Amino acid sequence: MAEHADDAAALVAADVTIGSPTSASDLRAFAARCDVLTFDHELVDAEALDQLQRSGHAIRPSAATVRLAQDKRRQRAEFSRLGLPVPVYREIERWSDLDAFGQEQGWPVVAKAGRGGYDGRGVWVLRDQEEAATFAASLADREITLLVERWVPIERELATLVARRPSGEMVVYPIVETVQRHGMCHEVVAPAPISAAVSAKAERLARTVAESSGLVGMLALELFLTGDQIVINEIAARPHNSGHLTIEGAETSQFEQHLRAVLDWPLGRTALTAPAVAMVNVIGADASDSGDPAARRHEALTIPGVHLHLYGKAYRAGRKLGHVTALGETIDEARDRARRAASALAGESIQGMSA
Amino acid sequence: MAEHADDAAALVAADVTIGSPTSASDLRAFAARCDVLTFDHELVDAEALDQLQRSGHAIRPSAATVRLAQDKRRQRAEFSRLGLPVPVYREIERWSDLDAFGQEQGWPVVAKAGRGGYDGRGVWVLRDQEEAATFAASLADREITLLVERWVPIERELATLVARRPSGEMVVYPIVETVQRHGMCHEVVAPAPISAAVSAKAERLARTVAESSGLVGMLALELFLTGDQIVINEIAARPHNSGHLTIEGAETSQFEQHLRAVLDWPLGRTALTAPAVAMVNVIGADASDSGDPAARRHEALTIPGVHLHLYGKAYRAGRKLGHVTALGETIDEARDRARRAASALAGESIQGMSA
Repeated sequence: MAEHADDAAALVAADVTIGSPTSASDLRAFAARCDVLTFDHELVDAEALDQLQRSGHAIRPSAATVRLAQDKRRQRAEFSRLGLPVPVYREIERWSDLDAFGQEQGWPVVAKAGRGGYDGRGVWVLRDQEEAATFAASLADREITLLVERWVPIERELATLVARRPSGEMVVYPIVETVQRHGMCHEVVAPAPISAAVSAKAERLARTVAESSGLVGMLALELFLTGDQIVINEIAARPHNSGHLTIEGAETSQFEQHLRAVLDWPLGRTALTAPAVAMVNVIGADASDSGDPAARRHEALTIPGVHLHLYGKAYRAGRKLGHVTALGETIDEARDRARRAASALAGESIQGMSA
Repeated sequence: MAEHADDAAALVAADVTIGSPTSASDLRAFAARCDVLTFDHELVDAEALDQLQRSGHAIRPSAATVRLAQDKRRQRAEFSRLGLPVPVYREIERWSDLDAFGQEQGWPVVAKAGRGGYDGRGVWVLRDQEEAATFAASLADREITLLVERWVPIERELATLVARRPSGEMVVYPIVETVQRHGMCHEVVAPAPISAAVSAKAERLARTVAESSGLVGMLALELFLTGDQIVINEIAARPHNSGHLTIEGAETSQFEQHLRAVLDWPLGRTALTAPAVAMVNVIGADASDSGDPAARRHEALTIPGVHLHLYGKAYRAGRKLGHVTALGETIDEARDRARRAASALAGESIQGMSA
């Protein structure tokens, strides 16, 4: 089911139903034809999923997992309850809560939308009391739930991809490093250049989160690393941008793995297919350049070891138009290849990007 | 374009036109909507392709290449003309030609249909003059062109997969070994367990055939190995069963490579993604067992490193229902995994197959 006939997946799937994932009646009509209902994003009506579940439909992951993934405040509360490491944070109900947190923990602080935050839209770094006051005023009449957390010097962002099936079987992929740009996931490399101890810790956390939340399907656990300390940033209960490199870079892609998990089939192996793998998103580079990246594909394909994925979306500056995955002998080699190909597709000068 | 709505590719493609590849008018109507016309089998009307080519359509591979691939006699004549090694053979016009060849070269001989031979239907081993006479009588009133060749003790069958684009760029995959069963391709392993010298010779042959025939797209060159002598058996000018293991087993699958080649895009790398890769076809095992292999998928998926491909065809004894590819550290490991999974899917006892 896709919202529009020209949605990326609808362009290539043999059997497409047009409908809205926030419409209870569309979901109900669709579920009637399905053995198992799953999704590749979280902008779904959790209440409707709950009702479907109660009337006997198999919803995987469950409505409860979807609710958890949709709500950062709920995640923080739940992970704190489980004794898992999260940033020092507080739920914000009124301006005075925000101010008090800044006074107590020191500025800057990071405010985050509790729900609907997505790819950095919904994250604000507030450097001092004045900025915090301006920010609070700007949100005065908007329906938004907030949390605030201590600003910490993050050395790396990591993600752990885990799959779990109803029978309890779990598999974890090699930990990846993610690099954000303008608050959006931009680059991912695997394996993350971290110690075995940090890697083991990241894996343990993912297993604990998956098991305690009764996860079914793929889950991406986003982590902040400072020194050898890890804290959980947030989760996505679906195939995730940080796992796109598994399509060519791992023995089982996260998309196949997600389907195996929700169908309760045996899970696939997660080993990388090359010593190093890198993924770089193709982002529209420049409002003045309105070319279709497909027209620039030729140049990108001359780079060895790259695999192009274009989503068929219209070009717009700042928009994710696709991604490139590259295999290599080293992370530097794989990343350089993926960057050059992504820049070529996005219409940036390759020179500019590599610098 | 597919002949039936339930053809394997039509089941998963977003945009399907129903039509016959042997109907000139269906091909014409379809070509009018295409930038480039290509195909994944050779049962196409070459005369119609020729006409389309003359009216300016891009037919890749060309009608001439399709004609060559459709006709073993034409291949033998062409490869002999180029000085490439082929089995000792003769074109057969009448019974006396067949008898004379047997007398001269010694029995047994192998008779092959010049056209329409496919997966072993169209190959006859004739042990002596009497069998040859019976065979000739059985074909008396059938429209069939024949060639006959000397029976040689084949040690291995190999295949070289090569892709070539209009600009002339070529890439060759690691040589694979193919194992036939009942005259059908049954197992494929890569890399083939052959010497570097034989491997280099097999690669050179494929490059020569691709270049001299002006190939555009994928070509599988099937070879017989005896000692360190290679002869060319036949060619397929398309993605081929011997290359299915490239989907997970090589950096660029033969299907992507074929599209890159016919679109004149830069070709992709052909390195294997694991030390060893094996493919085993899933063949309906037993007329009394009419189960859907999809129902037996669970068991196959418990085997590590395997990837299942089921074509959505109805079960029938002797029919290719799908294939399994397995990665491994050694050929034995990969082959054992693929065999076990294919047997499980086909409904054979795993015990029986491994023996």
